Amino acid sequence: MSNTYGKIFKITTFGESHGVAVGVIVDGCPAGLEITREEIQLALDRRRPGQSDITTPRKEEDRVTILSGVFEGKTTGTPIAMVVGNKDQASHDYSHVAQAFRPSHADYTYTVKYGLRDHRGGGRSSARETVARVAAGALAAKLLQHHGITVRSYVSQVGGLKVRKHYSKLDLSQIDSNKVRCPDGTTAARMIGLIEDARDSLDTIGGVVSCVVQGVPVGLGEPVFDKLHAELGKAMLSINAVKGFEYGSGFEGVKLRGSEHNDQFYTDEQGNVRTRTNYSGGIQGGISNGQDIYFSVAFKPVATILQPQQTINDTGEEITLQGKGRHDPCVLPRAVPIVDAMAALVLADFLLRQRMNRLTP
Amino acid sequence: MSNTYGKIFKITTFGESHGVAVGVIVDGCPAGLEITREEIQLALDRRRPGQSDITTPRKEEDRVTILSGVFEGKTTGTPIAMVVGNKDQASHDYSHVAQAFRPSHADYTYTVKYGLRDHRGGGRSSARETVARVAAGALAAKLLQHHGITVRSYVSQVGGLKVRKHYSKLDLSQIDSNKVRCPDGTTAARMIGLIEDARDSLDTIGGVVSCVVQGVPVGLGEPVFDKLHAELGKAMLSINAVKGFEYGSGFEGVKLRGSEHNDQFYTDEQGNVRTRTNYSGGIQGGISNGQDIYFSVAFKPVATILQPQQTINDTGEEITLQGKGRHDPCVLPRAVPIVDAMAALVLADFLLRQRMNRLTP
Amino acid sequence: MSNTYGKIFKITTFGESHGVAVGVIVDGCPAGLEITREEIQLALDRRRPGQSDITTPRKEEDRVTILSGVFEGKTTGTPIAMVVGNKDQASHDYSHVAQAFRPSHADYTYTVKYGLRDHRGGGRSSARETVARVAAGALAAKLLQHHGITVRSYVSQVGGLKVRKHYSKLDLSQIDSNKVRCPDGTTAARMIGLIEDARDSLDTIGGVVSCVVQGVPVGLGEPVFDKLHAELGKAMLSINAVKGFEYGSGFEGVKLRGSEHNDQFYTDEQGNVRTRTNYSGGIQGGISNGQDIYFSVAFKPVATILQPQQTINDTGEEITLQGKGRHDPCVLPRAVPIVDAMAALVLADFLLRQRMNRLTP
Amino acid sequence: MSNTYGKIFKITTFGESHGVAVGVIVDGCPAGLEITREEIQLALDRRRPGQSDITTPRKEEDRVTILSGVFEGKTTGTPIAMVVGNKDQASHDYSHVAQAFRPSHADYTYTVKYGLRDHRGGGRSSARETVARVAAGALAAKLLQHHGITVRSYVSQVGGLKVRKHYSKLDLSQIDSNKVRCPDGTTAARMIGLIEDARDSLDTIGGVVSCVVQGVPVGLGEPVFDKLHAELGKAMLSINAVKGFEYGSGFEGVKLRGSEHNDQFYTDEQGNVRTRTNYSGGIQGGISNGQDIYFSVAFKPVATILQPQQTINDTGEEITLQGKGRHDPCVLPRAVPIVDAMAALVLADFLLRQRMNRLTP
Repeated sequence: MSNTYGKIFKITTFGESHGVAVGVIVDGCPAGLEITREEIQLALDRRRPGQSDITTPRKEEDRVTILSGVFEGKTTGTPIAMVVGNKDQASHDYSHVAQAFRPSHADYTYTVKYGLRDHRGGGRSSARETVARVAAGALAAKLLQHHGITVRSYVSQVGGLKVRKHYSKLDLSQIDSNKVRCPDGTTAARMIGLIEDARDSLDTIGGVVSCVVQGVPVGLGEPVFDKLHAELGKAMLSINAVKGFEYGSGFEGVKLRGSEHNDQFYTDEQGNVRTRTNYSGGIQGGISNGQDIYFSVAFKPVATILQPQQTINDTGEEITLQGKGRHDPCVLPRAVPIVDAMAALVLADFLLRQRMNRLTP
Repeated sequence: MSNTYGKIFKITTFGESHGVAVGVIVDGCPAGLEITREEIQLALDRRRPGQSDITTPRKEEDRVTILSGVFEGKTTGTPIAMVVGNKDQASHDYSHVAQAFRPSHADYTYTVKYGLRDHRGGGRSSARETVARVAAGALAAKLLQHHGITVRSYVSQVGGLKVRKHYSKLDLSQIDSNKVRCPDGTTAARMIGLIEDARDSLDTIGGVVSCVVQGVPVGLGEPVFDKLHAELGKAMLSINAVKGFEYGSGFEGVKLRGSEHNDQFYTDEQGNVRTRTNYSGGIQGGISNGQDIYFSVAFKPVATILQPQQTINDTGEEITLQGKGRHDPCVLPRAVPIVDAMAALVLADFLLRQRMNRLTP
Repeated sequence: MSNTYGKIFKITTFGESHGVAVGVIVDGCPAGLEITREEIQLALDRRRPGQSDITTPRKEEDRVTILSGVFEGKTTGTPIAMVVGNKDQASHDYSHVAQAFRPSHADYTYTVKYGLRDHRGGGRSSARETVARVAAGALAAKLLQHHGITVRSYVSQVGGLKVRKHYSKLDLSQIDSNKVRCPDGTTAARMIGLIEDARDSLDTIGGVVSCVVQGVPVGLGEPVFDKLHAELGKAMLSINAVKGFEYGSGFEGVKLRGSEHNDQFYTDEQGNVRTRTNYSGGIQGGISNGQDIYFSVAFKPVATILQPQQTINDTGEEITLQGKGRHDPCVLPRAVPIVDAMAALVLADFLLRQRMNRLTP
Repeated sequence: MSNTYGKIFKITTFGESHGVAVGVIVDGCPAGLEITREEIQLALDRRRPGQSDITTPRKEEDRVTILSGVFEGKTTGTPIAMVVGNKDQASHDYSHVAQAFRPSHADYTYTVKYGLRDHRGGGRSSARETVARVAAGALAAKLLQHHGITVRSYVSQVGGLKVRKHYSKLDLSQIDSNKVRCPDGTTAARMIGLIEDARDSLDTIGGVVSCVVQGVPVGLGEPVFDKLHAELGKAMLSINAVKGFEYGSGFEGVKLRGSEHNDQFYTDEQGNVRTRTNYSGGIQGGISNGQDIYFSVAFKPVATILQPQQTINDTGEEITLQGKGRHDPCVLPRAVPIVDAMAALVLADFLLRQRMNRLTP
């Protein structure tokens, strides 16, 4: 297992879907950052189950407690532990899946890898684990805010339906204005329709989250292996259900010629170095160049469906599995705060790592 | 900087484009693996400049020397250092780019990040650095071969031109049968035409490399952060010019419903657990499930073009830059051995990490 | 800050002396290890304050809760979080030390390093943090027990009073037979007298803990930097109040000639390779050689004394500090389980790392 | 194997005693540091064999080449590779030890650990590996010099003969004024006599190196695990032949009462916080307090002696081994630059890590 992320601003998460609690230790947050429990809670509330009728109706309060590392409203430089209890963890009935290997879930691979499995709600492979990431990400976002950096993600595609506008034409302050978290109102309405249709068909549907990071200073990213986009990619791909990552011009950019794709530098009226286009996605040679960073993350349709499916159990026998319970027909709206959190964690880490690259007086 | 990759099978690379040499230390290769200098050299020859008329005509022998860690034909468990000299490193004339910030290169970001820059051929940001990765990857591939795992990459797209066949319909033994390294002969011929056209227009063109990994045991990958596909993604995104990564159903898969996308398990006649489809790309919950792993990597068009371009120099003045020298019109054919190398390194690392997950007697 | 220890069997600790709780996440414990809350508690009980009249009379139950990673009595391979609440954390009066820099404490260095300080009971610099180490160490010890390895520490010196017998002449099963944790009964009685005398003089006294590790297989330790004794040394030196570490012949061994100090190999009647002497302390070239490992750890006298002391406050003014509260006159008896824990953690980590050194079929 | 040391200023070493070369990659040195090949060479010359008649008469030039990372006399922030060729590596005759397990050497443990062994001169377990550490340490020392920090080690004990003066009473500029590297001339002469006597008896002798670090700012060290003295301890214990480490009052300090051992703070005339005594050795709570750091390192007598010894070979048969060749009768004089190097590496790493502890504007 590997449950630690980051080199300097490091998080270590723990907890299973239906265990006692999930939580995180953040080690490496600089001392002196003002933070309150409520700021962490706000981020968790965006991820919470039961927030709308296009997410799981399961109710969890997801109330966070800070156990250490904050004194008189400020971080002290010591590890910050945060914990969120799992409600009613003992009350669920998982007997119908205890022996089954659910299709496109991690039941089979966990069983073979570890020789045993905590079958309660997916155990550690459940997206419940992302509670811990969101709590830590809220702290990272506070550090970024101190340095003038904002991270904003939104749903840019559900099924085959895409937002056609460039992010710069969207009002990113409107992301939370609808329940699908797409700032383009017209498309949002159609996305909601698609998700409701999937839900009512006892099915699920995938999509894409796009993210825009603004106010990033030049110089973040640590080549040759820890390039800024490489870490963003890893962080995004580590989120449950993610199948792909692209930044800047991405997969479409490969169709261009170099003469079309190159971003010309110029000096603006304030004397700042800028580029006329931004196919680079704000990153050149793995290092931020001061332009907006933008990237997209593909999420597959949720594997848990409420239809009968053919599969096998842990003795290899074929069985029919009937999904039940309360599940998300589409993970995208609740994935937005998770993408935000992981992006914030990557940037906070590089912001600190950047301090070490030059000789100081 | 971060020049080390891997947790157990670890590589640390060094060297600039026009410095004395590039090289690598591999730390963590198990003792007892048979390896020869020639096996490393074969991999480097696939990456070498000047190998065909659709790559750079620059000539480099890229002859590797093993400095340590191999005794009487076997690895000893100690660090394996390999070095490749840079030919004629002093003879080039870079005065025309010494002060320029080339568009979509790392000149500007390196200068700001480090306060100074080795302007000779891109210095550390040059793809010359991948010589070290390919040498280390050849060693990793030898370890994989010992365990029955094969990694095979090929060019699946150049510009807008894609191989339409599924990888399972291709004869992957034919990858090196043509100079573009696409095993679909008809498409390969058209790809070569596209590249020649870009070259003759003093321009460059992008594309996609796809990779298939076969023979992988169930259990590789270390959730929740070091998921197998997350590390593959990071490794690929750390390669020069890469803009995107997807595995299994990737970005296309988001359009499917869960009922279409889920991979049903069954037990085959030999008693092996298999899936009827493989949208998962051989990875579930971040862990290999024994099916083929496949993924794709997007490469932007090479930034160095032989046309005049507008840009600025390090004092902010606008200048016209005239590209010269010998450069690749398309990086794809030579990117294939680099994707192979990084994939082998990721898998070798997880193969060793996998040894620690269970209690042993 | 650096609050993670270990490469494979990794612990990350959190918590301040008078915060809400202290705790630990253990990441990397193999799946399938049987463990109960009670086994962890037993180790904590050996460290608990108030256990005898030669330790602090402060009462803490130090009751541990396992939050994750154990299912149906066995580890699952996922992170194991354990937490111990701090009793009455709000009730203490620290106003007398809030501004003071206590002599030979970390008040001054923490204040300068972090720009602020949690003054309650030393905050993170308090030995209260070792609660987390002992809990994790109990888990590591269970893993070692599964592999037939035992770790046993004892108090071998208090002030100038040393146990004169070689460890092989002591009955190590008697360590807990007296309150000072010295298995040599006669010396133990005199040690207790020394500690009582220090206590009654409102003073404190230092000493040495010695540790013997038996049943270690040949091959643990990872040169050239992570030599077995180098990691043991670091682990011990990371414990509060430790001033020195030596293993095998240690500082005394430097007086010998090579011809006296070399340990001759021979083959015993069972065909095992052994050494006639063991000045090497069971470690050669940084790797265990199968003989007993033994080492010693020096602890300074506790810095908190109940006498008035001259010092300064955080504005630089000289003040007289009057110690109060309930403190240990000698840390040694309660240091024994901490040394046990750190030694177990080091060995568990190397036991897992050792799995990767050779090619497997 | 673990051949990397440091978190930010990281070194990775390679090379065996009689392989092609030994070398190091330094990753994480800040950009802009002025360094020349000659400065590295000077440090290597202090470690070189054949420098006097009390060291091995073996001749090695140990000429270093910088392969990367330095451009126009300054570090560029990219990895700095340095390599030193091994002279005449093929010409030695090791047939007499190829099958033997030499007493108190690593032959046996390496053979069992890795399943095979490079028997030429100890292979990787040879102190030849420290060439790489000294080269990297010279670079670290240059960084420390830029920040006003000096590291100075000297031989403080040979066999039972100790320098009786406190380090503050010695003229540390005189360390290299004699061939044993002890700044106390009278004791130095007697030490030389002891070493000559050991050499003429075909025997070897151990000793202690002490180290003083001055000019260290307050705040270096990263609790709770990477305390400054814990890393110094690990770094020292990772050097060949080291058996113990103590800092400040060390093992002697355990005899004191807290009232004697505590270092009182005061404010000096310049307004600096200081301590009246320095039993803490310049480190409190694992963090430098601005006072001098001092520590001692115990070296066992060299295991290679020129007398016949009883041992076994790799089939378990008892044999008589007759030492031959050119070896050091006492490792201490040549250990001084190695202790210097490792101390510099530890401090350089913490100097960079310290940059991340506080919020910046």
